[in-house]
Amino acid sequence: MSPAARHRAQKAYPGIHVTPDAAELIASPEIDAVAVITPVWTHYEIAKAALENGKHVFVEKPFTSTITQGEKLIELAARKNLKIMVDHTFLFTGAVRKICQLLEDGTLGKLYYYDSTRVNLGLFQHDINVLWDLAPHDLSIMDHLIQANPEAIVATGQKHLNCHEDVAFMTLYFPDKVIAHINVNWLSPVKVRTTLIGGEKRMLVWNDLEADEKLKVYDKGVNITNREGVYELLVSYRSGDMWAPQLEQVEALRQELSYFVDCISSGQDPHNDGHAGLRVVKMLEAATDSLNKRGALVYL
Amino acid sequence: MSPAARHRAQKAYPGIHVTPDAAELIASPEIDAVAVITPVWTHYEIAKAALENGKHVFVEKPFTSTITQGEKLIELAARKNLKIMVDHTFLFTGAVRKICQLLEDGTLGKLYYYDSTRVNLGLFQHDINVLWDLAPHDLSIMDHLIQANPEAIVATGQKHLNCHEDVAFMTLYFPDKVIAHINVNWLSPVKVRTTLIGGEKRMLVWNDLEADEKLKVYDKGVNITNREGVYELLVSYRSGDMWAPQLEQVEALRQELSYFVDCISSGQDPHNDGHAGLRVVKMLEAATDSLNKRGALVYL
Amino acid sequence: MSPAARHRAQKAYPGIHVTPDAAELIASPEIDAVAVITPVWTHYEIAKAALENGKHVFVEKPFTSTITQGEKLIELAARKNLKIMVDHTFLFTGAVRKICQLLEDGTLGKLYYYDSTRVNLGLFQHDINVLWDLAPHDLSIMDHLIQANPEAIVATGQKHLNCHEDVAFMTLYFPDKVIAHINVNWLSPVKVRTTLIGGEKRMLVWNDLEADEKLKVYDKGVNITNREGVYELLVSYRSGDMWAPQLEQVEALRQELSYFVDCISSGQDPHNDGHAGLRVVKMLEAATDSLNKRGALVYL
Amino acid sequence: MSPAARHRAQKAYPGIHVTPDAAELIASPEIDAVAVITPVWTHYEIAKAALENGKHVFVEKPFTSTITQGEKLIELAARKNLKIMVDHTFLFTGAVRKICQLLEDGTLGKLYYYDSTRVNLGLFQHDINVLWDLAPHDLSIMDHLIQANPEAIVATGQKHLNCHEDVAFMTLYFPDKVIAHINVNWLSPVKVRTTLIGGEKRMLVWNDLEADEKLKVYDKGVNITNREGVYELLVSYRSGDMWAPQLEQVEALRQELSYFVDCISSGQDPHNDGHAGLRVVKMLEAATDSLNKRGALVYL
Repeated sequence: MSPAARHRAQKAYPGIHVTPDAAELIASPEIDAVAVITPVWTHYEIAKAALENGKHVFVEKPFTSTITQGEKLIELAARKNLKIMVDHTFLFTGAVRKICQLLEDGTLGKLYYYDSTRVNLGLFQHDINVLWDLAPHDLSIMDHLIQANPEAIVATGQKHLNCHEDVAFMTLYFPDKVIAHINVNWLSPVKVRTTLIGGEKRMLVWNDLEADEKLKVYDKGVNITNREGVYELLVSYRSGDMWAPQLEQVEALRQELSYFVDCISSGQDPHNDGHAGLRVVKMLEAATDSLNKRGALVYL
Repeated sequence: MSPAARHRAQKAYPGIHVTPDAAELIASPEIDAVAVITPVWTHYEIAKAALENGKHVFVEKPFTSTITQGEKLIELAARKNLKIMVDHTFLFTGAVRKICQLLEDGTLGKLYYYDSTRVNLGLFQHDINVLWDLAPHDLSIMDHLIQANPEAIVATGQKHLNCHEDVAFMTLYFPDKVIAHINVNWLSPVKVRTTLIGGEKRMLVWNDLEADEKLKVYDKGVNITNREGVYELLVSYRSGDMWAPQLEQVEALRQELSYFVDCISSGQDPHNDGHAGLRVVKMLEAATDSLNKRGALVYL
Repeated sequence: MSPAARHRAQKAYPGIHVTPDAAELIASPEIDAVAVITPVWTHYEIAKAALENGKHVFVEKPFTSTITQGEKLIELAARKNLKIMVDHTFLFTGAVRKICQLLEDGTLGKLYYYDSTRVNLGLFQHDINVLWDLAPHDLSIMDHLIQANPEAIVATGQKHLNCHEDVAFMTLYFPDKVIAHINVNWLSPVKVRTTLIGGEKRMLVWNDLEADEKLKVYDKGVNITNREGVYELLVSYRSGDMWAPQLEQVEALRQELSYFVDCISSGQDPHNDGHAGLRVVKMLEAATDSLNKRGALVYL
Repeated sequence: MSPAARHRAQKAYPGIHVTPDAAELIASPEIDAVAVITPVWTHYEIAKAALENGKHVFVEKPFTSTITQGEKLIELAARKNLKIMVDHTFLFTGAVRKICQLLEDGTLGKLYYYDSTRVNLGLFQHDINVLWDLAPHDLSIMDHLIQANPEAIVATGQKHLNCHEDVAFMTLYFPDKVIAHINVNWLSPVKVRTTLIGGEKRMLVWNDLEADEKLKVYDKGVNITNREGVYELLVSYRSGDMWAPQLEQVEALRQELSYFVDCISSGQDPHNDGHAGLRVVKMLEAATDSLNKRGALVYL
């Protein structure tokens, strides 16, 4: 709706029609799919209108502001036989694809924990807190990697500057003793995008700010032996080589959009569909509930 | 009590008398003070015996296994007019002394948060979990810097390998919207010792693994203006120079022990006395309580 | 001359006229200035034609393939009252401007050395060796900072893969004991862009690959005292804070081009004019001469 | 000869006899081998006296001040059937042993270059320049890895503070297009110990200051194809995983001394014998010659 933004868009892509009116887009008979890249609180109304007009929708993360909204959109899309894709862009990066493969092929062994730090200075959002702003990245990655729903969530945080939390911490209890943790902060002097993932066989560090060597896989581990008749556990540490696999050099968003088009053409449901988006919203709602109670354990 | 350890000690310091029997030390009329560097669960009995024999005591952190034990030792020392010093070594490092000074002289401005990551592979302890092993460092530093007791604590974690938590996260709510967070982990492939401290005027990163430049102070901040009649808050970011102050090149333990001797000679109470040790044990007990309930909010 | 490149240019800037024929540009009466962004060996002919047609010229570094060519262009531009600017882009970055200021205002003290490492994998050039490809950056920066001509140059290197050196090292002896050194390499597994600059009062490290904190200024130094009657020199080391000044966030090329336009409008000679370009070519010719003799000392 | 040093030694090792008189040691019938850890200019006289008294000698690097001295010691040891070991400690580190293995087993492919940066603030030596102080490390490693003598050497440098060069650069031309380069500096604000080694098949970075991951091996390379009838060379880049092999956790000096004892017992000549020490001295003499001529090419 900003005239300056429209001007820039028109200048960069002179061949397209630019409009300040979403309704015009949604109503256009020449358009098959709509991308909803707007503040979270507007997702539901715009996506709903688009689906009602027979458009497939690609929605920015987080999918919706509430679980109910997400459920309604999913139901509507199913009824109209349309596709919803939620923009969980990280799932299309070389790093996450490689981590996924290392888990699937057993390289990491049984998963122990997922621990992400995602902090920087700003950018403060006016309508959402730091959890809703930054945690969806990690929640969507976890959802994809762990392939299970969390049993319970604990979130803590603090509002220093205005009415939204600017520092927050979140623990997710998954089945089988998998624990996940997210540290998000709008008030950090340095930018950090580091995730530790520990498995029974190997552990890895994913530093997304590294130009090369984003992923380092460590042949390290701990073995516990409980010898008969011995009171104390015997702990032994295993330490071997480190290995930084070369990652696919792909532009994640381009891959994702190409996948969106493929799904529409083939009728296949994307893995980052409305249900995936909804699972993330459910975690965010539980976290908000916990945060409001200063860290109460909230079961999902 | 290990013969090999006694042999090493005797070889390194041929002039001293080495004994496997703590009672011998405690009973010796030639000794004025005893250092209790043993597993936590033995602190109380040994320190108690030493105090009863008229010795000043220097006790490894954490001070005691329970609040009650700590209170009893404090009471006993007061009655016998003896000093207790708890080994909060970090308070004597150049880094913590500088941070303390930056807070006291207003360089950082009002404190917003303290966020520490203290992870590595092992060393598993047999008698305590990772919180009791690693968090006392941060709790004693916080206690020293923040100069206030936390109002409530939330701790989460998981046991992957044996009967003690090997991964844990802890949030502490302090008065005046100060929030603290500790991430401790025995199953990390890399060693991390990094603390972010955010203030209203400046923010800092303390990386204790850096040989030089352990402390980086950032002239960065966020200003929020609430203009009359304007719905949205105006957020502006301030960004200036980074500055790594030279730190005192001191051997912390040597400083601490020299301070212990000074306190005994002068009759002055050390700042890291039994009360300081007890405050840390109180936080650990609350954290344990919360951890056992998978993250319930525990008020202190 | 590549149709694909012309197509991309036309698409990005639909309003401009794109042509494969440099002569068309040079002859156009609507054009005041021409930018020559072509292989080095073509600079002279194109720039000469442009100047003869009354155009100001902006020429990629290195200015020309030979000293004679450079001299002829300077003479021609002077005769026609036209401006030459050589694209020494780094001079317009926040980092180099700050270093320049630190030298001028005495912060660094008397300059001791300039030592640059500029290595990466590829990109092999077909017409020039690694010195002509990468060293002009450092030579133009040195020329700007040191404000003196080198007295002598020594260059060594090796050709591993084809007819041009892919690894090379260059030492420049400047007056007043200032020494400069450049390490360039097309066969390095990692990309490095690091320059050490040592002064009598302070020293700095410029790491151009750092997102923030590109420049670190160290309050470090060495004092030598020659006490009367004492045989050995007394060396004392000074060590203080490190300081990373905030740099201007400017797009160097934009600044440079805006300065080009200003110089044309005002008639002022740019500091990076043909003479500056020629000084760099002189260093490169001397270095080539030395390199061909496997490191002979070549006086300028 | 310093009483304080003797006192410290006696205190640490109460069982040994400490003396200020080297002659006493050398004459002692109870001693089989002498370690000469003294300034370079004293090596020859002390080692000579020790050999004449029938002692095996372990000599600090660099072996001697001149080629002639080295040759005389080798001749004397041979005549007396005694062993000389020169303290090229780095050859016994896990890092150099691994690099050696990677070269020998063909992992790196044909060697292209060895490029070392070894800089820090101080410590100024009174009797030798920075080349003689720091370069012997790299020269002994190169000698061990490359297994060939350099054909020619070029050294440049500058004296800023006293009568010895404090900044110096050295290029060594080895047979088969292998080039080596050493950058040594006593006036650097930061400590750097980084060596790049490029081979036809793989390249590596050895950062000796890293606690873990000292060695990173890159599956990177360049292929040049010269297609028939095509004027330009086709350059293609190969890029794969990075790999940090676990290194042996050995204390290099302990290994070296144990090897010294083994060589004496078994009669085997150590690989770091007088001849190895002499080869390094020859390179240093050639470098000094070149340095004095400001970088003339000196053939060996």
